[in-house]
Amino acid sequence: MLDAVLETVDSELPASIGRLFELLRIESISTDPAYAPQVRAAASWLADELTGLGFDAAVRPTDGHPMVVAHDRRGERDPHVLFYAHYDVQPVDPLAEWSSPPFEPRLVEVDGRQRIVARGASDDKGQLMTFVEACRAWIKVAGSLPVKVSMILEGEEESGSANLSPFLAANRDELRADVALVCDTAMWSRSRPAVTIMLRGLVGEEFIVSAADRDLHSGLFGGVARNPNHVVASILAGLHDHDGKVTLPGFYDGVGETPEGVRAIWESLGFDPAAFLGSVGLGVPAGEAGRSVLEQIWSCPTAEVNGMIGGYTGEGFKTVIPARASAKVSFRLVGDQDPGLIRDAFRAYVRSRVPADCRVEFVPHGGSPALRLPYDGAYLERARAALRDEWGIEPGLVGSGGSIPVVGMLKQALGMDSLMIGFALDDDRIHSPNEKYDLASFRGGIRSWVRVLAALAA
Amino acid sequence: MLDAVLETVDSELPASIGRLFELLRIESISTDPAYAPQVRAAASWLADELTGLGFDAAVRPTDGHPMVVAHDRRGERDPHVLFYAHYDVQPVDPLAEWSSPPFEPRLVEVDGRQRIVARGASDDKGQLMTFVEACRAWIKVAGSLPVKVSMILEGEEESGSANLSPFLAANRDELRADVALVCDTAMWSRSRPAVTIMLRGLVGEEFIVSAADRDLHSGLFGGVARNPNHVVASILAGLHDHDGKVTLPGFYDGVGETPEGVRAIWESLGFDPAAFLGSVGLGVPAGEAGRSVLEQIWSCPTAEVNGMIGGYTGEGFKTVIPARASAKVSFRLVGDQDPGLIRDAFRAYVRSRVPADCRVEFVPHGGSPALRLPYDGAYLERARAALRDEWGIEPGLVGSGGSIPVVGMLKQALGMDSLMIGFALDDDRIHSPNEKYDLASFRGGIRSWVRVLAALAA
Repeated sequence: MLDAVLETVDSELPASIGRLFELLRIESISTDPAYAPQVRAAASWLADELTGLGFDAAVRPTDGHPMVVAHDRRGERDPHVLFYAHYDVQPVDPLAEWSSPPFEPRLVEVDGRQRIVARGASDDKGQLMTFVEACRAWIKVAGSLPVKVSMILEGEEESGSANLSPFLAANRDELRADVALVCDTAMWSRSRPAVTIMLRGLVGEEFIVSAADRDLHSGLFGGVARNPNHVVASILAGLHDHDGKVTLPGFYDGVGETPEGVRAIWESLGFDPAAFLGSVGLGVPAGEAGRSVLEQIWSCPTAEVNGMIGGYTGEGFKTVIPARASAKVSFRLVGDQDPGLIRDAFRAYVRSRVPADCRVEFVPHGGSPALRLPYDGAYLERARAALRDEWGIEPGLVGSGGSIPVVGMLKQALGMDSLMIGFALDDDRIHSPNEKYDLASFRGGIRSWVRVLAALAA
Repeated sequence: MLDAVLETVDSELPASIGRLFELLRIESISTDPAYAPQVRAAASWLADELTGLGFDAAVRPTDGHPMVVAHDRRGERDPHVLFYAHYDVQPVDPLAEWSSPPFEPRLVEVDGRQRIVARGASDDKGQLMTFVEACRAWIKVAGSLPVKVSMILEGEEESGSANLSPFLAANRDELRADVALVCDTAMWSRSRPAVTIMLRGLVGEEFIVSAADRDLHSGLFGGVARNPNHVVASILAGLHDHDGKVTLPGFYDGVGETPEGVRAIWESLGFDPAAFLGSVGLGVPAGEAGRSVLEQIWSCPTAEVNGMIGGYTGEGFKTVIPARASAKVSFRLVGDQDPGLIRDAFRAYVRSRVPADCRVEFVPHGGSPALRLPYDGAYLERARAALRDEWGIEPGLVGSGGSIPVVGMLKQALGMDSLMIGFALDDDRIHSPNEKYDLASFRGGIRSWVRVLAALAA
């Protein structure tokens, strides 16, 4: 039976790509309110697809963008798995750097490999569809799924997941399952799959500094009027010391050290820091002094300025002292760092550096703690075996510098552990122009889920 | 005769306003190449107007936006004056903060005073037209002007005046006159006119820091990849010390102290620092410690960040490490500070702070030295008397924090001193949304020039 399902995956691959392209064409940018109708359209498209596969599927409202929830009521075979992915995508700017329009997906061959190019191709529509297509193949061949499957597909992952935790709590009995499957992570390499067992947390915060009640001419007022650009720059510059450590008081409370067992697994991965940095044109690790590159991205906390703006930034020059300037800052958290305390410490730090004649406002953009998952459970062992069968190599057990808030929320709201399995690659350019998903990721992902579903049933 | 001309100014005022409105409707933003046709249209409009007044007027090409040059060939009466003003304007952003469209001029009454609201109303189209309308009144009543008048009207003042100096040099014999009249300055107050005798110089410089060859995801790369936002913020934050002094090595070479005679004039002006700052919502001088507000804006050099941008600055949040970040910085110069040395010192400072894996590019945006004019010459005395007659009060001899590069260029290229007389007010919001020019400035300006032209002939 398994072989027949895998054969169907391959023979149906062109149709699977076609469906993914349909989803990729929907401009579901969650972070920009102007795109709310498109976000909803993506939700409806998914609910329709899942209904077509026999799921009991619906678009469910939240205070923000909707959730898609689907249950397969046909089989009651244990275990019950809850699949999570997100159907929203990042903004596309700078648009000029895209080689083709971000919402017109296309298949492009580069170095002999086919890749699907579009915003969301990898993060997370392509990944999401690997699981949907795996279910489709099982249903087509076997008439049912090997385990009981529910799904929750989110539309706000790229904008802070504000409504996910309340939604999980409000629908606790409906959504609780034996294990969650989360498909928003990467492979270790093109040839080696991975299960992610450590995730950094995230605190996002924006602040706006205002001074004069209007933009001023720097000739008439320069020198005597407080310049918000200077205030913001000084605040941002003071976030790190000369060793790259974050200066907020208490920031490193709860960071802890990476367990020896995990460190040993990482050392066995044969990671090449020079190749990793070189792939994006860099050569020198910029993080905390005395840490390896893997540690810097998987187990060190960070503060990054994701955006800053103030004054005249167009073509040419304008001698203005702006009325306001602002920045968006994110912190990646590890160990037991507390997102609430980090946010408070940041706000206190900013306030302490805002001089006379200035006001500061804060806009929170989500927060979640870091997460370490057990790396010796039964479900993990079965999934590892399934991945080994598909890829012919032992999967890596890896960390991730990114944050997947849902994993913490599933643990907290539903008491569930997650298996984080995904097929993205480090060069997928997620959140960047020309985002892509390898066709090998898409096909291998579908086939992997076909096998994982079978293995979990065993 | 003088009285008849002044009466004509008043009776013709509505028509004068109508002509100014025509000029204000032309979107002559010189700093943005997209507006080049409108800049040219403003030049043509002026040349046509001056031709209509009997001037030998033409739009003259440069490597950038054109000059308008006009000569009155009818009278050869000494002295020969060269009037300078500029017909280009600043960009209008942030557009949302304008109460009415910036290129649809209107007359608005505020607190019982009529004001002309539009981009360029004060800087510099309104000021420019005070002189043109004064000439018109003389010609209409007397058939000729009391002195020989030439004009040079520039289209690149707001974008660095790159072609002015070469143009002056190339047309030295044609343009050289006995004294220049420059109308790009302010009154001391609503009731007291001013002649400006000190101007700060200006160095404008933009720099762009690049690191990775693409925008990166701060989860995957955060901590290990160099973030250009941090580099730019650190460079900007390091430009000032805790006392507000600029940190560039050699920056204060040549600054000198304000002469006692000038300082005495300033102290007699009855300047109210609290009212000056309070007019824009500020309360605390932010410049060099131990300097008065007038000194901070007239005789202290400055470094101001006029613009900075990097990463995601739209609605919401995007966890990106940008490939590049940039800033536009201007320095106001005083005394004998050398613009070239200041630019070199800034570039050396930036380069010294650009870490491994980063590149930096510089874009120069013009430079000019500070200027001190003689405050005891014959032309200045005649102009002061004319202004006193019009306004009934002794005019102030003031400094200006702004930079008017043409004054230095006229000195250097043509060996001419300038009389800087203008009728702007500090609350004109030049370079800001809702720029305005008081109708009293416009009428009083025209009448003042009528008197100054007569007085210079004496």
